[in-house]
Parts: sequence; structure tokens; C-alpha cells
Amino acid sequence: MTRIVRTVADLRSVVAQWHDSGDRVAVVPTMGALHDGHMALVQAARDMAERVIVSVFVNPKQFNDANDLAKYPRDEEADFKRLSAGGADLMYAPDAGEIYPDGFVTKVSVSGLSEGLCGAHRPGHFDGVATVVAKLLLQTRADVALFGEKDYQQLAIIRRLVRDLDIEVEVVGVSTVREPDGLALSSRNVRLGENARKIAPSLAAALMTAARNIEAGQEVSQAIAEARQAVLAAGYAEVEYLELRDSDTLERVSKLTKPARLLVAAWLDGVRLIDNVALTPEAKPPMSRPNVDGK
Amino acid sequence: MTRIVRTVADLRSVVAQWHDSGDRVAVVPTMGALHDGHMALVQAARDMAERVIVSVFVNPKQFNDANDLAKYPRDEEADFKRLSAGGADLMYAPDAGEIYPDGFVTKVSVSGLSEGLCGAHRPGHFDGVATVVAKLLLQTRADVALFGEKDYQQLAIIRRLVRDLDIEVEVVGVSTVREPDGLALSSRNVRLGENARKIAPSLAAALMTAARNIEAGQEVSQAIAEARQAVLAAGYAEVEYLELRDSDTLERVSKLTKPARLLVAAWLDGVRLIDNVALTPEAKPPMSRPNVDGK
Repeated sequence: MTRIVRTVADLRSVVAQWHDSGDRVAVVPTMGALHDGHMALVQAARDMAERVIVSVFVNPKQFNDANDLAKYPRDEEADFKRLSAGGADLMYAPDAGEIYPDGFVTKVSVSGLSEGLCGAHRPGHFDGVATVVAKLLLQTRADVALFGEKDYQQLAIIRRLVRDLDIEVEVVGVSTVREPDGLALSSRNVRLGENARKIAPSLAAALMTAARNIEAGQEVSQAIAEARQAVLAAGYAEVEYLELRDSDTLERVSKLTKPARLLVAAWLDGVRLIDNVALTPEAKPPMSRPNVDGK
Repeated sequence: MTRIVRTVADLRSVVAQWHDSGDRVAVVPTMGALHDGHMALVQAARDMAERVIVSVFVNPKQFNDANDLAKYPRDEEADFKRLSAGGADLMYAPDAGEIYPDGFVTKVSVSGLSEGLCGAHRPGHFDGVATVVAKLLLQTRADVALFGEKDYQQLAIIRRLVRDLDIEVEVVGVSTVREPDGLALSSRNVRLGENARKIAPSLAAALMTAARNIEAGQEVSQAIAEARQAVLAAGYAEVEYLELRDSDTLERVSKLTKPARLLVAAWLDGVRLIDNVALTPEAKPPMSRPNVDGK
């Protein structure tokens, strides 16, 4: 039975009881509009902890674009049903006043990792993410927190933030869940028109081709140029960035000598989509094929 | 018996034992060079908790002036002796690498409260304070944290930061301890020459006179102008700021209608001294006379 809690005080009282009984507590921070990608996080959380909290909070501070915030899909009832079916113990759905009460003025920022990639195109976005995630981790006092690898830069920032601020929580990244045609699951996918939805998977396809080619020895800049070309040729309006970065530090990489990540953001049908894949210096990459969730 | 601990891991293991035995844990964050002002914090901590941690860490991130950092007094052995005599249970004395390991990039900032007053003259200072205090609170997981009212802006910032980031700790401010002549205790006082030391108390005297006059109905700007004049006439080289502010929000106040604070920073003999006093709209102020610690 999944319960809904809307205040920090209620949340803490539930978690304190769980901890008192010796239960390990996991949290999956989300902005709602839950899809199979989120449910894979919930399942991974259940495998790691006795109790699973899913927070559902559309965080205004991480939207640099008011229009994007207004359009962000919200359906709490549907989210609750999914979480009940998925075996989450608690849905934490605070309103904005509970998270940012009057007089709120504190900001957490993670420099370096937050610059470039999505950070370059969404000013203030990662400060908003870092601030709300720090709060959610401290509010829940969870033992483990799970995040999707689809938001790879976000995951790297959160790992760093948790280490830097000495928050006692284990951060776990979970592989991106994809549609059968390779498109990474995203709450934004529902905003794609019928034709755009058919074009959309070319982003993942181009990434994976480039990843395989770089692993096979193709020059990085050449592989990236070809991928960019393929995405635009498929019908995407713009490629915001397409870059190879170090897996941990997110520093720019021009040769594949350590584990790296190829990351992309591109616009299609007025929707901004992101994706990324892992590259390893060895020949056989672990993520060169779509990871399909059959549920 | 006071013990010394130098790593987060050791600190956490000790605190976990204390919490497991049901002990309440207090922390007094300091930069060492302990004086009676700090020991008043330790005593207040002992009154509120079974276990008292005193952290001794000269935080490089809160020094905007490398010269000030280099000159900051350090005497760990003397600090340890004072803490042993004062009944602290643990001295936490990490080195800079333990607090800021390689790759550290996270910053906590508290806007509004950090601007103006000391914030205007020490760029980045309060970001450094907020970041290290957040870390110390999360490292110690203390139930209560005590800070001196002498650093009043710092105290206001920490109260806000703890609320904003949902850190589960009670923040307690402790009255400024003064020399018999009224000079607020400070680790920087030892840097005053003999003559400057005689002049120094005029700062507190001018503050208290102004506070009494404002409470008695004198116009704020007039009282401040007179106090500034008195400090310079006594031999101070410069008054950096001398302002009346709201006790909670630190917003500028031009009339005494709510509890307020008169705050000053001034330079004497190459040393920057700060002080502040409370003002209440009623006739009898609680802090119009020096608070003398006879120890």
C-alpha cells in the first residue's frame, strides 16, 4: 500500500519509524510524469532497500524557461497508480511552498561539472537541481538515492555534491530505459507529434553508431561530425551539443583512452531531447545496444 | 578526557556510538585560537547536550585576504588544553585535504543575508562560511550547533542555511563575551599593539551609547553619525560599516520598531574588528551593558 505524504514533518516521522525498525530506505527523486524509466529506478530501489520513497516535485528552480515549466506534464493520480503498482512505499508530493518557504535564499552549486553540455544551454538549471536534490536527500535521510543515467550530467553533479557536502547517502545510477526503437524514455516524449515520434529514434541510433565507430578507432571529431549530420538529416531542427566527455569528471575527451560518455541534446518538433551512451577503450562496449524494458 | 579526531570517518564512528547510546550531541564550530568566548559556547553546549564536539579548522575558503589567513593565529596544543579543561568530549581537527579533497567544487551560498555588512567588504567570505558549516553539520550529524553572537551576520546566515537545506540541527546563538573594559573577545585581539589595545574598547562603548540613544528616541542616522565620529576620534583608522539592521532578516532599519541589531566593523592597528549589540523598541535593552566573563 503506497501512501502519500506532502510535508517534511510527516515524511520525517515515517522515515524515522522505518529507520528505527532497521529498514534501509531508498529515494527516487522525480518530477512525476512517471514512465518505465522511472519504474526501473523504483525496481532497482526495491532491490537495494526495504523501503522506497518516490518524490514527485516539479522543481521550478531548475527550469530556466517558464514555457518549459508550464508545459511540463503533470498527472499526480496516474503517478500514484504507477507507484502503487510498482511497489513504492511512499509518494512524497510536496507543494512548492513546502520546498521553498518564504524567505528561502540558499543555493547549492557544483562548478565545473555544471558548466558546458546542458549547463551551457540552461543557465541556472543545475544549481536548481543541486539545491533541490540536496534538500530531498536531507529531508528523506535516505540511505540510497537512485537516478537515471539518461540525465548523465545531472548524475555526475549529484555524485559530486553528495561527496562534497558529506551527505550520507549512496548514489546509484541506473541504465537508461529505451523504447523498442531505441528512443530514450522521457517525460517530454509525449509532446512529440506523430511524425516527430518516428524521427526521434535517429538520435539514439546516431549516438550508438558514433560510439561504435570511435571504439573501433574512428577519429572522435569525425565520428561526432557524422553523427551530427545524421541527426539533422533525419529531421531534427538543431543539435545543441554532441560531445565526448570523461565519464567521471565530464572533461572534454578527444581520444578514447578511459571510460567516456558521448552526450547529445537536440531539438525536434519544439521539444528538447537528450541522450548519452557509454564508451570503453576496449572493443566490446557494454551499452552499444538499446536496453529495452519489456514491461 | 578529550579526544582528538582528524577524519570524517573517525568522527562519524564516535558520533554514531554516542547517538546509539541515546546521547544528544552538540557541536561548536571554531577556527581555533580559543578564548573565553569559545569556552562560553562550550559551556552552553554542555548545558544542552551529553556530548560536545569542538571543531578546530581554519577554513581557507572564508578568507578573501591571503595575508589575513596567513596571520590567523594557530595553536592546536593550547586549544586542546583549553578544551580538555573546559570539558569538551572531542576536538575535531581535520586538515584542509580532509575537508576539501581533490576535485571539491561545491559551494553553498545564502543570498541577501550575505550581502552588505561584512559581505560587502569580504567577497566570497560567507559562501566559504556557509559551505564549511554545512559540511561540519553534516559530518558531525550534531543535534545542536552553537555560534557566538559576535559574528552576528554569520549566525543569521547559518540559521537561514539550516532551515533552507533542511539540516536537522538546532542552531543556538550565544551572547558575546567581553573583556572587563567592554572589548568583544576575538582571536584577532592578540594582534593589537599595546596602545591599540587601550583604544580598542571605544568601539563597543560607541555602539552601546548609540544603542541606548536610539532606544531613547534619538534619530538613527544621527546616533550612527555620532558613533562613527567617536570611534574615529578614539583612534580607529577606518569605520568599514556601522549600520542598524533587522535582527532576523538583516534588512536595513531606519526606525526602531522591531528588534534590531547595531553592527560595526572597524580597523585599528591593521586589525579588522567587528562587534554588534541588540536594540529593542522598549526602553530597557537586554544587552546595553558589557557581558563580562570573569573566568
